[in-house]
Amino acid sequence: MTAPGAHVSGEDALIARYFKPLATDSGAFGLTDDVAILKSGGDDVVVTTDAIVEGVHFLSDDPPHTIAQKALRVNLSDLAAKGAQPSGFVLTLALREVEEAWLTAFASGLGRDAGIFTCPLLGGDTVSTPGPITVSITAFGRVPPDKMVRRSGAKPGDRVVVSGTIGDAALGLDVLRKGRAADALGSDTAAREALISRYRVPRPRNALAPVVRALAHAAMDVSDGLAGDLTKLCAASGVSAVVDVPAIPLSSAAKTVLANRATNMEALISGGDDYEILCAVAERDVEEFVRAADEAGVAVSPIGTIMAGAGAAQFLDQAGRELQLGRASYSHF
Amino acid sequence: MTAPGAHVSGEDALIARYFKPLATDSGAFGLTDDVAILKSGGDDVVVTTDAIVEGVHFLSDDPPHTIAQKALRVNLSDLAAKGAQPSGFVLTLALREVEEAWLTAFASGLGRDAGIFTCPLLGGDTVSTPGPITVSITAFGRVPPDKMVRRSGAKPGDRVVVSGTIGDAALGLDVLRKGRAADALGSDTAAREALISRYRVPRPRNALAPVVRALAHAAMDVSDGLAGDLTKLCAASGVSAVVDVPAIPLSSAAKTVLANRATNMEALISGGDDYEILCAVAERDVEEFVRAADEAGVAVSPIGTIMAGAGAAQFLDQAGRELQLGRASYSHF
Repeated sequence: MTAPGAHVSGEDALIARYFKPLATDSGAFGLTDDVAILKSGGDDVVVTTDAIVEGVHFLSDDPPHTIAQKALRVNLSDLAAKGAQPSGFVLTLALREVEEAWLTAFASGLGRDAGIFTCPLLGGDTVSTPGPITVSITAFGRVPPDKMVRRSGAKPGDRVVVSGTIGDAALGLDVLRKGRAADALGSDTAAREALISRYRVPRPRNALAPVVRALAHAAMDVSDGLAGDLTKLCAASGVSAVVDVPAIPLSSAAKTVLANRATNMEALISGGDDYEILCAVAERDVEEFVRAADEAGVAVSPIGTIMAGAGAAQFLDQAGRELQLGRASYSHF
Repeated sequence: MTAPGAHVSGEDALIARYFKPLATDSGAFGLTDDVAILKSGGDDVVVTTDAIVEGVHFLSDDPPHTIAQKALRVNLSDLAAKGAQPSGFVLTLALREVEEAWLTAFASGLGRDAGIFTCPLLGGDTVSTPGPITVSITAFGRVPPDKMVRRSGAKPGDRVVVSGTIGDAALGLDVLRKGRAADALGSDTAAREALISRYRVPRPRNALAPVVRALAHAAMDVSDGLAGDLTKLCAASGVSAVVDVPAIPLSSAAKTVLANRATNMEALISGGDDYEILCAVAERDVEEFVRAADEAGVAVSPIGTIMAGAGAAQFLDQAGRELQLGRASYSHF
């Protein structure tokens, strides 16, 4: 046999070159061992896993750095909604081939976000596939013992609160596909770009996590559509809800598309990829919740009320009529 | 909107039907929340992630229950080699379509192994893909604080010890592909089946974990070929090694294939998928290590010695000649 250097395989070289610089946590062992170590420090470890697939969750011509950001951020969004502080992630990357430019941009986007969200790479696996690029991430967070915010826990009388704006990512995908939203926005490049950005790069509300942990009875992130996700939260809590549709926060771009009748509220609240936080907050705590969220730099909007009962959430328009929702949330199968 | 039941999407129904029964740990919340909770109980949490891809790590016509077993067991093998006790796993399953028979068998194999290895399903993600079936698992284990066995730590004079037998899985793949190993075994169906079983269903040595933790200076699992993996362990420890090739443990089926010249030692120690434990044990502890391993039901074999220096591990045949190894270990790229 020859010198050890000759035995560094392509896979090992790839990991050393692109991903080792991201493995800044001591528990990652510089990606030189088989595993990583998570020190819990007495906290509960929160675990979430989400994969994104080329052609399903992102488009083949999306920039590689935004693909990396999306893969990490959809997981960060789950941690945020549970009131957890990110502590690291592992990555499985299935690639058809090693393209230097693609990997450089991918690792750069991933590293930047790992820094911004203080969520270092702990380990991973790189495999070859003849199929679509698939990025699977398992992310870890910490919460004080038994303080994780669950989907269950919403109580009748609680206010339903949502962060940010709803429907932008679904419109962004429509713009990328040159659908009606693109026509409706005409030459307003800034609005089109804003929506595309929401599709490609979710904005997980990790800054809101401490507020959620302190004040929310129940929470989840909105990933498969507000309507379906609220119904899931209600089902887990054994309650129902009524939502005041005009109170649902929309971006100015979404309002323009809506005003041009190139979408409707049913579509906006059934579309996926919002990655906002949906939670139930006691009526008496709502003011404090809104104030604390504002201090954390996140706009939140009370949009409805948790009700006793077991029916699906009702979405009422300004005339009090219930929206008729066909497909309430995104499903892969 | 109609009754909540109507809003259960295909994906949710799939998870509830096939995977919820496996989520027996309280931290899994019956797969009804966005995340899982790992209680560390003051231990260090060991994290490992490995994916298997149809056509790359398993064959399209492998039985679904063995695909599930392989996906979980390759991760369990990493935990075993680090001296960790399994505590659970999350699963990302990328499927082209929902085939009831396939999923039933897959979930059955997964559930059986989760029980055998006391490693419950904690959560997961199910996504659609137009490409090959991809099963990505992140598994968790526990070790007392700072007791994880690393790749580094091997010292000159330590004995190199390996569990089980080497080369069977690579021969099993050759049998499945109707290669020379199949011819060499002729009508010996039992031998062929034994090798195929080693390829499809790894036998992670989790029973050996406490012994490794107590007595090994360094350890890793052999997944990419004994020769390359030993060189990796040596590199991490800043040492070299000499292996006595005739001491490398072979199954009777492998011995038959070797006797028929349908393979050679170079191929057996460079093939992948062994999922045995390779470790460095102080000379004075080897007897105790072998005895304790035997009590745990795992055969182990001292095969060589850790040497000072930085060269790649040398593999010497019975005449003291060094084996010439081309591709020392499997690499995806």
